[in-house]
Amino acid sequence: MENNENMPTEIYFCLAVSITALFFAGFLAWRIKKQPVTDKKADQLSRVIKEGAMAFLNREYRILFVFVLIIAALLYYFLSPKTALAFLAGAFLSGLAGQIGMRVATLANVRTAEKLNKDLRTGLNVAFNSGSVMALSVVGLGLLGITILYLVFREPVVIYGFGFGASSVALFARVGGGIYTKAADVGADLVGKVEKGIPEDDPRNPATIADNVGDNVGDVAGMGADLFESYVDSIIAAMVIGAVVAVGERGIFLPMLLAAGGIIVSLISNLFVKLGSARAGSGKNPSTGSGQGILNRGIWIATILMAISGYGLVKYLGFGSSVFYAFLSGLLAGLSIGLVTEYFTSHKYRFTRRVAQAAQTGAGTNIIAGFALGLTSTIIPVLIVCLAIFLAYQWSQLFGIAIAAVGMLSTLGVTLATDTFGPVADNAAGIAEMAGLGQKTRQRAEDLDAVGNTTAAIGKGFAIGAAALTALVLMVSYGQAVKLPFIGLLDFKVIIGLFLGGLMPFVFSSFALQAVGRAAMAMVEEVRRQFKSIKGIMTGQAEPDYNKCIDISTKAALREMILPSLLSILVPVLVGFLLGPAALAGLLAGSIVAGFLLAVTMANSGGAWDNAKKYIETGQLGGKGSDAHKAAVVGDTVGDPFKDTAGPSLNILLKLMAIVALIIAPLL
Amino acid sequence: MENNENMPTEIYFCLAVSITALFFAGFLAWRIKKQPVTDKKADQLSRVIKEGAMAFLNREYRILFVFVLIIAALLYYFLSPKTALAFLAGAFLSGLAGQIGMRVATLANVRTAEKLNKDLRTGLNVAFNSGSVMALSVVGLGLLGITILYLVFREPVVIYGFGFGASSVALFARVGGGIYTKAADVGADLVGKVEKGIPEDDPRNPATIADNVGDNVGDVAGMGADLFESYVDSIIAAMVIGAVVAVGERGIFLPMLLAAGGIIVSLISNLFVKLGSARAGSGKNPSTGSGQGILNRGIWIATILMAISGYGLVKYLGFGSSVFYAFLSGLLAGLSIGLVTEYFTSHKYRFTRRVAQAAQTGAGTNIIAGFALGLTSTIIPVLIVCLAIFLAYQWSQLFGIAIAAVGMLSTLGVTLATDTFGPVADNAAGIAEMAGLGQKTRQRAEDLDAVGNTTAAIGKGFAIGAAALTALVLMVSYGQAVKLPFIGLLDFKVIIGLFLGGLMPFVFSSFALQAVGRAAMAMVEEVRRQFKSIKGIMTGQAEPDYNKCIDISTKAALREMILPSLLSILVPVLVGFLLGPAALAGLLAGSIVAGFLLAVTMANSGGAWDNAKKYIETGQLGGKGSDAHKAAVVGDTVGDPFKDTAGPSLNILLKLMAIVALIIAPLL
Repeated sequence: MENNENMPTEIYFCLAVSITALFFAGFLAWRIKKQPVTDKKADQLSRVIKEGAMAFLNREYRILFVFVLIIAALLYYFLSPKTALAFLAGAFLSGLAGQIGMRVATLANVRTAEKLNKDLRTGLNVAFNSGSVMALSVVGLGLLGITILYLVFREPVVIYGFGFGASSVALFARVGGGIYTKAADVGADLVGKVEKGIPEDDPRNPATIADNVGDNVGDVAGMGADLFESYVDSIIAAMVIGAVVAVGERGIFLPMLLAAGGIIVSLISNLFVKLGSARAGSGKNPSTGSGQGILNRGIWIATILMAISGYGLVKYLGFGSSVFYAFLSGLLAGLSIGLVTEYFTSHKYRFTRRVAQAAQTGAGTNIIAGFALGLTSTIIPVLIVCLAIFLAYQWSQLFGIAIAAVGMLSTLGVTLATDTFGPVADNAAGIAEMAGLGQKTRQRAEDLDAVGNTTAAIGKGFAIGAAALTALVLMVSYGQAVKLPFIGLLDFKVIIGLFLGGLMPFVFSSFALQAVGRAAMAMVEEVRRQFKSIKGIMTGQAEPDYNKCIDISTKAALREMILPSLLSILVPVLVGFLLGPAALAGLLAGSIVAGFLLAVTMANSGGAWDNAKKYIETGQLGGKGSDAHKAAVVGDTVGDPFKDTAGPSLNILLKLMAIVALIIAPLL
Repeated sequence: MENNENMPTEIYFCLAVSITALFFAGFLAWRIKKQPVTDKKADQLSRVIKEGAMAFLNREYRILFVFVLIIAALLYYFLSPKTALAFLAGAFLSGLAGQIGMRVATLANVRTAEKLNKDLRTGLNVAFNSGSVMALSVVGLGLLGITILYLVFREPVVIYGFGFGASSVALFARVGGGIYTKAADVGADLVGKVEKGIPEDDPRNPATIADNVGDNVGDVAGMGADLFESYVDSIIAAMVIGAVVAVGERGIFLPMLLAAGGIIVSLISNLFVKLGSARAGSGKNPSTGSGQGILNRGIWIATILMAISGYGLVKYLGFGSSVFYAFLSGLLAGLSIGLVTEYFTSHKYRFTRRVAQAAQTGAGTNIIAGFALGLTSTIIPVLIVCLAIFLAYQWSQLFGIAIAAVGMLSTLGVTLATDTFGPVADNAAGIAEMAGLGQKTRQRAEDLDAVGNTTAAIGKGFAIGAAALTALVLMVSYGQAVKLPFIGLLDFKVIIGLFLGGLMPFVFSSFALQAVGRAAMAMVEEVRRQFKSIKGIMTGQAEPDYNKCIDISTKAALREMILPSLLSILVPVLVGFLLGPAALAGLLAGSIVAGFLLAVTMANSGGAWDNAKKYIETGQLGGKGSDAHKAAVVGDTVGDPFKDTAGPSLNILLKLMAIVALIIAPLL
């Protein structure tokens, strides 16, 4: 509360904008909730999904609570009460955003399914609105937290504790959620589709609800927490670096104002999406393509508006155009990195089709082709990130790189809305199928799901790029924090750090893959047991014990994440204290480079296998049931934990290690 | 020819030792050749294999010749005639070593098969002798070339041209050979085993000879050229660094003398292997285990003798014990890195068995388990390399790291012999099968093949570790060469370099995987065509057109390697000239870290899939023909190009980029 008397307008502005975002989110959530659900069966299914999702979240939060208290105590003792407080705030707000997002997503899924009965437009609207709630909660709570902490402490460095708190929640939500969702998915498929020959989302499958819960746990809460972290980390890092490079508080305010501007832009763009869908809905037969088109338009509008308002804000604070160019390079990098992902993983394009063709000669060639695609697909994202770094640095040095990261994440209020739309649409399709909502509704739900798959893929690519750039900015900030005059690339300790850093993503993804394998096996056994012991499941006369499956996934996910979580916190601490601050910088650099590449490879090969299978299911290359299809199913099985567990977990690893390094920097 | 008058004893010694090694190699080759081949069918098969192998090699050398001349002209023009000459010498001697190794291996395979008729011992002896010829040619020609070049120029830096020449040959042999061997293997299996249901190495399969040729092309010539390069690069780098750190020529002589000492040690250890096999052969029923034991003993003896003589040489040149410790840490790192590979990829141990168990729930889970194993298996090799770097640097700084690399490769004269033993035994088993050499011989051949698989796996792990450490030493040497006062890890150009460097192994392995895919498809079509158009193949009345298949593999391999080869030379040049010498250092560091990790992952997951399949074939988990076996075959198909093409190709990439950087350093 040092300089509280002269609180600048900029801070009022940020407070006002973030609170507005939260009000708007609340309003949308209220509108979703007040819509009645008429179909009994659908209502009941959605309740089970909701309960399952909340059960996971609550149990996760219980462990998280202990974890957070321990870390907070350590921070309080070894660093400062301020950092500990910021940490608690970050953990609390990120957790709150996840709660809100999950609750609304599980309300919206059934309502989306029902509205599809009427037409595509209203369904799309509900699903997108729930995405908006999540997105606006994330950016609103993120900026609110940062603004209040700055108001209280007036020290940007302290706010890194806020980022660390967000990291902790992201670790649980993304890694735990990723294990949960794939254990349920793989377990459900292995017994249901393969052994019993019943379709996906069949209510007779005991693991099917756990599978639907998993979509929310992994793709809503996990994705949200991941991007919450990137969002706040990039803003904080830019504030810290900005405090050094610019006179007065200008350098601190710029990232905050850009974030606030981004929230306003997102609010406007969200309205555009709604208007767009209203217009598309008025057409007789709104196609899937237009659904995609509406969402894309929202993102494009946001980008253009953001560029304009970014220019205004940069000038308002008296910075030169060069700072704006840095911002712009980040903004465009974020846009293009998502689009590239779609290009590599959608079966509209030749890359994924080639993977499907390879399935004609068997599962082995399909796997090789998909993995090769994943490896190749790293080229453009890496070049985009390198170009963004290059341009941003040329224009405004380190501050430019930090502002580029802020730029990449500035439109999160709309991009995250389209990401979250995916799992809601997926759930809606599941409910429509399970509740037997009629042919037309189910078809529309499938169409909406297809759009959701695309936005989810784009979101995944964006999340990886954002994580890499954010981690990089944190690393640069760490370099300033340890006050070493120079960290030499060819210093032998730095080289060792690089190797160990590169090792971490490999080990971490190995843990994630094995965790899914073990958890899925436990699920398979339970599903088999239920099919055997509960008479009448297959005829539909008896109901399977969905909760038991949810329980297994929950426990397995939380148990399996302990070791990798500890590793990702302990390794930077050990390297920092045993090998010194320079080696720790090497560790971060190695982890970012190897982690970014591995994450893109895994996410995109996984996406390609999935869509190659879907391509064959459209009737190509022999269609469903053909040998090519069987081979493609193998690819999909491999791809599931690649793209939904191991790949996304790396986002967390990179940022978490970097923020731990920053937090312990004063002690080194 | 500057200081020719006062030529020191050390140089005489190195000349004498390397010539002795070559004489000994010649003697062994002569002994192999003079052994008669009695079985007509076996003789004919071995001739076809030999012709195929030589046809590939000759066509490769024709392209290589042009390539080498162009590079030599560029070196002559832009750098110096000396470097160009050294380059030509390196290419010539590495090519010569490959020629010798291939010729002898293709003579030895049939003789090994026939001698197995008598007992295991004599067979093992022939196969191991041919490995010794390859190994002694590599170390003999390597040291001879370096010694003569030093004698002529008295400038260690110029000799980097020799390493570059060796790199060029390795590129063709390892990458081209890797594509060749797997195109033939996958092509043969896909039609033979899967479509026609005939066993491996069945003479009715038109691609079977190409498959056998591939073993020689990839595992003999490829492996030999790879290690020739690591061997000479590590010696040269240590000479260059030694020239700076020590007064007079001591620092230059130490690596040369250690290499010469290593050759003597290898000669002795080779004799021990022979004595050991003589003793084992006198037992009634020499088991496979003892075959492995004999080879292992050879390596252990070599390690102990090398440690002793290393100490003597260090002291002789007046260095402190600390230099010896650095040497020892490299020597032990090389030994342990190979053994770890066996631990992860042999089905004697639980890791690979778990992969086999995962095959029981299908191909997908088998793939995930194997890939997770590959990722995990990076931990120990990375820690070993880090520890070796740490200790070596603590004891003798940069010179220590270079001497550690020399230490790792010092016993190459025996380790490479055991590696090369693998493909010869593999070929012998193939010939025994195809020529129908009787049940007992075939069983012994299979046993010998199993031993060969283990030594090949160990050799692969060793080759990767050696490549990583060698590339690292080259990078350090590059850092000295560009004379930048400091290369900062957090310099934005270095960061970009790191990203681009990390990207290269991903892209390179993607190329390799796709190349195998395309080449295998061409092979599949040809094999199918022959089965259709040549009547009586299946009944054995007509002979397939083996040469056509060899031709397809040869052409495909040479065509497919153009793009990745150009990339690996052009990227460092472009980065160096466009982004500057610091960025180029970043490129090397990124490529070494990511490349090492990816190479270990691919090699070991491939090895584990292969051996998981073999484990099931021993009758476990349902045995041959079970569902688990079918799933394991998918894993093996994926693993083939992983472990034999993409993984080993990365060894070349790392070193080649580093040596290109060193060569262009004076121009930056």
